[in-house]
Amino acid sequence: MTGRLPPVESWPVVVVGADVRDEVTDAVVVEEPLEIAVRDGEDGPAAPLTVTLRTPGADAELATGLLYAEGVIACGDDVLEIRTAAITEGASFPNRLEVRVRRGLAADLSGAQRTFISTAACGLCGKVAVDAVFAKGFPPLLPGEPRIGRAVLAALAGRMRAAQTLFARTGGLHAAALFDSEGELVLLREDVGRHNAVDKVIGALLTARRLPAERALLVVSGRAGFEITQKALRAGIPLLAAVGAPSSLSLRLAARAGMTLVGFLRADRFNLYTAPGRVTDEPAA
Amino acid sequence: MTGRLPPVESWPVVVVGADVRDEVTDAVVVEEPLEIAVRDGEDGPAAPLTVTLRTPGADAELATGLLYAEGVIACGDDVLEIRTAAITEGASFPNRLEVRVRRGLAADLSGAQRTFISTAACGLCGKVAVDAVFAKGFPPLLPGEPRIGRAVLAALAGRMRAAQTLFARTGGLHAAALFDSEGELVLLREDVGRHNAVDKVIGALLTARRLPAERALLVVSGRAGFEITQKALRAGIPLLAAVGAPSSLSLRLAARAGMTLVGFLRADRFNLYTAPGRVTDEPAA
Repeated sequence: MTGRLPPVESWPVVVVGADVRDEVTDAVVVEEPLEIAVRDGEDGPAAPLTVTLRTPGADAELATGLLYAEGVIACGDDVLEIRTAAITEGASFPNRLEVRVRRGLAADLSGAQRTFISTAACGLCGKVAVDAVFAKGFPPLLPGEPRIGRAVLAALAGRMRAAQTLFARTGGLHAAALFDSEGELVLLREDVGRHNAVDKVIGALLTARRLPAERALLVVSGRAGFEITQKALRAGIPLLAAVGAPSSLSLRLAARAGMTLVGFLRADRFNLYTAPGRVTDEPAA
Repeated sequence: MTGRLPPVESWPVVVVGADVRDEVTDAVVVEEPLEIAVRDGEDGPAAPLTVTLRTPGADAELATGLLYAEGVIACGDDVLEIRTAAITEGASFPNRLEVRVRRGLAADLSGAQRTFISTAACGLCGKVAVDAVFAKGFPPLLPGEPRIGRAVLAALAGRMRAAQTLFARTGGLHAAALFDSEGELVLLREDVGRHNAVDKVIGALLTARRLPAERALLVVSGRAGFEITQKALRAGIPLLAAVGAPSSLSLRLAARAGMTLVGFLRADRFNLYTAPGRVTDEPAA
């Protein structure tokens, strides 16, 4: 409730290498929704501005910087007061923040107001966000299916990188790549936006009438945040592997859905966070 | 107009290493706005859904995947037709796309509609997006000020990483760090979201009445996309250095504003894309 907790959670993880399979505890960065509202003057109306997925800490600075970037405030004196609150019972971090600004600055925020589709549907704490994905629905995942050999999985980041023609030219793109359970590349898309690359892959599958992708693996070049994990789950993809780290909220969603979430995917090792049974020491059948 | 152009632009760049300063041409990934609109049935009303900054290519897949992730469509047959158009004269890539979906699916998109504050203000092609930043205004940058020594700049990525306490524990965060022109760390913020980390830094400066930050350098752990560059410029920061690559739209904005944009910041080299005069071979005065 205080925001003084370090924004790190402990998760059990299986570290998989060529000759090891160690069960250890990993420190995972917290990702939680924060609603930012703006009040015009001391007693004006409050308008919800946005819900953002963020790492708790420096929430007042985050809201101040966002309002400045968007041109709502122009200097420090434009902010009268900032109040944070945990409006969801049991929330470990504040999940609502109200910024009171000088009268007139927030009188008409219709031009600045933003709602993210996914995160707006998320609700205002991690548990509600995960509940909302289940309420919306997704194709059921088959426990333990498909089976993926350890060496097959370890090779995928390298295969994705080798197929990234635009990255090779510019060094500037994120990628999302779909593989079958034997490690063959099905399709790859690149974009400056990591969410865009995933949307392009899933849009291509939908257009080709190939959803749900219940035997496919999705590899992403960045981190596995909540929105990426949610997109993969909605496509029925049973295994998501990220070159970067997963967030706490991603792990909560993947664990509950029975999706296998892999982090820090490297040629010689990776971390198995959830539903580890899909990854075997044997080659794929 | 066709979308068949490769989404890569050529930019002059100065590659700076310990003993070299080579002027070469770099391939930079294109970032351009795309408006996605949805029409309910063959002749229903069209509603603008979002403006997204993306790399041109596979635009129809991007829109399809986004609509699926948001629950507007559930299968390939829900999409009747997709039309792309370049509605801005001189645009090299389509910048508007309309998805016609089965009647009833988009009858009420109020829950799903999203507008990004920044990108909505961007207009619908890169040139208009850059114009909009100038129309909104930002503190003027002093040409050639401050001067930063090459070796000072090269050391900043390592100094930022050393200060990332949460990254050290989790491997899962983006960072934004403000340095003075002699390379001393002023403040650092970490977040799962790269934009959040920058907003936190700028919010802290605003709260401390330290904007504009006309002698500061901002280092970011990821790429320099348009939104990050825009946030730094609004704070009056004359030099932005990214560990990753810049996008075409960032470079266009930085070049016109006279901001120094550095990409691929490493301990032994970096790329100087715009306003290179601030970076000297001498130590800072």
